[in-house]
Amino acid sequence: MSANPQSDGFEACPQPEVSEAPPRLAPASIEGRVLRRLLSRVGDPPVEFELWNGERFAHDAAAAIVRIRVKDRGTLFTLLRDPQVQFGDAYSAGCIDIEGDLVQFMQLVYHAAARAERQQSVTARLTNWLRRARRNSLAGSRENIHHHYDIGNEFYALWLGETMAYTCAYYPTSEATLEQAQIAKMDHVCRKLRRKPGDSVVEAGCGWGSLALHMASRYGARVRAFNISREQVTFARARAREQGLAGQVEFIEDDFRNISGRYDVFVSIGMLEHLGLENYAQLGRVVRRSLNAMGRGLIHSIGRNRPSPLHPWIERRIFPGAYAPSLGEMMQIFEPWELSVLDVENIRLHYALTLRHWLQRYHAAEERVRKMFDDAFVRMWRLYLAGSIAAFETGTLQLFQVLFTTRENNDIPLTRQHLYGV
Amino acid sequence: MSANPQSDGFEACPQPEVSEAPPRLAPASIEGRVLRRLLSRVGDPPVEFELWNGERFAHDAAAAIVRIRVKDRGTLFTLLRDPQVQFGDAYSAGCIDIEGDLVQFMQLVYHAAARAERQQSVTARLTNWLRRARRNSLAGSRENIHHHYDIGNEFYALWLGETMAYTCAYYPTSEATLEQAQIAKMDHVCRKLRRKPGDSVVEAGCGWGSLALHMASRYGARVRAFNISREQVTFARARAREQGLAGQVEFIEDDFRNISGRYDVFVSIGMLEHLGLENYAQLGRVVRRSLNAMGRGLIHSIGRNRPSPLHPWIERRIFPGAYAPSLGEMMQIFEPWELSVLDVENIRLHYALTLRHWLQRYHAAEERVRKMFDDAFVRMWRLYLAGSIAAFETGTLQLFQVLFTTRENNDIPLTRQHLYGV
Repeated sequence: MSANPQSDGFEACPQPEVSEAPPRLAPASIEGRVLRRLLSRVGDPPVEFELWNGERFAHDAAAAIVRIRVKDRGTLFTLLRDPQVQFGDAYSAGCIDIEGDLVQFMQLVYHAAARAERQQSVTARLTNWLRRARRNSLAGSRENIHHHYDIGNEFYALWLGETMAYTCAYYPTSEATLEQAQIAKMDHVCRKLRRKPGDSVVEAGCGWGSLALHMASRYGARVRAFNISREQVTFARARAREQGLAGQVEFIEDDFRNISGRYDVFVSIGMLEHLGLENYAQLGRVVRRSLNAMGRGLIHSIGRNRPSPLHPWIERRIFPGAYAPSLGEMMQIFEPWELSVLDVENIRLHYALTLRHWLQRYHAAEERVRKMFDDAFVRMWRLYLAGSIAAFETGTLQLFQVLFTTRENNDIPLTRQHLYGV
Repeated sequence: MSANPQSDGFEACPQPEVSEAPPRLAPASIEGRVLRRLLSRVGDPPVEFELWNGERFAHDAAAAIVRIRVKDRGTLFTLLRDPQVQFGDAYSAGCIDIEGDLVQFMQLVYHAAARAERQQSVTARLTNWLRRARRNSLAGSRENIHHHYDIGNEFYALWLGETMAYTCAYYPTSEATLEQAQIAKMDHVCRKLRRKPGDSVVEAGCGWGSLALHMASRYGARVRAFNISREQVTFARARAREQGLAGQVEFIEDDFRNISGRYDVFVSIGMLEHLGLENYAQLGRVVRRSLNAMGRGLIHSIGRNRPSPLHPWIERRIFPGAYAPSLGEMMQIFEPWELSVLDVENIRLHYALTLRHWLQRYHAAEERVRKMFDDAFVRMWRLYLAGSIAAFETGTLQLFQVLFTTRENNDIPLTRQHLYGV
């Protein structure tokens, strides 16, 4: 990933010209018409625009909650072309600024988009439906994963906290700290999986290794953990050595499709988003052939209420090839192999809390990030984190934990009480 | 439903001729070849046949656990034609008997079927896939529901217990009584739905009314409960009057498709099985239009690990038009309307426990059932209950409770601790 990821075709905007008085833009002017069309296309969120010359425009000025500053005419016209992608790029480049709370602004945008979507024609819905995420072949996956995860452990360490877990945490109460909630997530997952000492575990997409190490140190599991991000695997191996767990946890730099052997537990936290639908049946086959007769598994993934492409700016700039499935789509993993779903929990509000903690730490570290990369990178990542909070809080994104087992396994607890035992 | 439901084309078998010694059947005889083919078609379960003349046959006599007595040659040849349907009919007619535990026998059959299915060719799988359940139009539903539920409240009262709940109960421990478990199920459902005093509730398919009355008396809800079975509605109204709840619970003899108004809660326990896939999107539309902005809903249904037709004998003799969906298929209810799934719990082993309680009571009441109907009915219903225990215990059937809410509802508890609060 280059340090300036929005370089393709986006040119630096000129310096803003500050005007002396803020007059209202004439609705009949070219800019007025462009803005009216733009707002209408994104569902008329209650925002106000302030242009490079100080002129202001809103669909309903009295209702406007957040102000968007557009720094030059070129940016305004670019926005009209493809608002979803261009907005993110222009914000990153500093050609657009948000006056007020960025998360709140993104919430307004998502609420308006949901409204607009409900009013869409069938044709428009079908067009959206047909948009396709990038294919994830073995080679494609490596490239896509490299894009996001190999930009530097040092960068992620600035805001992910001690566990380096880069997935939704689990908050027993909303007052829990990020570290507490990440540990609680691992324990919650382990309780669902009913881990027993000596269990053999295979993990697909292990990140920086926190869950694998936790399962080994806390529950005595033997873990083989797969990951195709070289930087993450190197980091995870070093941690295993530091913690004296190198004999119990094996980190393997390889694709989950190359998992061999049989295990008591299959677990995958936050990898599915990088797969692409066309690989779900294959994932299911790997799961099925990897599980012992009484095996249990858990897949934790960002999801949707219904099949929809990821936000195109996120898919292009942040997570190439990513796709967040609906629960129905996730079933394509399990049903062909008759894996039996025992429990699904949607914890989307936990991801909003997790992201709020990340954003807070990220804000505090922005100066250091700017030195590592540049201002555009700082702004891009800020928008991504703020936008993700809004997406989970508005129900645009979900977070599903799906627990499953083999068809024949009857060693299932009658109730889920053990997850909440006092 | 006629008192002798397997009368179409099935003729009474002649009296068995009891032989004096039990010789083994020659494998090369016609009967031997028929039995070998029959056993192979159903996956070679470890059973032994005993024919009308006392001759015995098994795939592996040493491994045989249960003995099947076939009382005449005609029955044997009929079995070969369509073993799944003909077995149930012949058992009901008394032309086949099982020596040993009927539930255990059915478990052997289901295990063998699962094994055979895994070895099926792609063509055979596709043929199964294409089998279609009866369509459930408004009129068709009435007829199908009448077939099963209007055969007499008195009959069901013999074995359903005090609550008259004819759906999977919930056992906080396996020692709970049927009545305790049915009440616990209602409370579990109400906790999931976070019912508050004064909540308005609409119920689709309310059976004999136990949940509606429970919600009203225990949680102060106002309930409108829909059901197309006249006998059930009459019974439920009488109970409401007896309990002084007639002002709080309205039982409506109508199809759920005619639900009007808006409610805080939508609930449906054990109705989905009678719908047929083609009506799922319509159910979702009714749910969506019936829910307030912060509305919650729960659908409880028998399900499958993957899309499969119901057992053809059950579909033909017991539940015409019934279909048990996979979880992926259930999502066809929610996804088109962007209803957000919060929680799925698979409680199939609870249904096995429930059915064991029912079967026990049914056994004790068989003499009375025989007087109400006839021996064939007694045997048919016994086979249905025993077979259902086996289906849930072998993972052939699942039981899904799906909790959902509107996209925009953020008033969601962070954890599911409240379901298990001490």
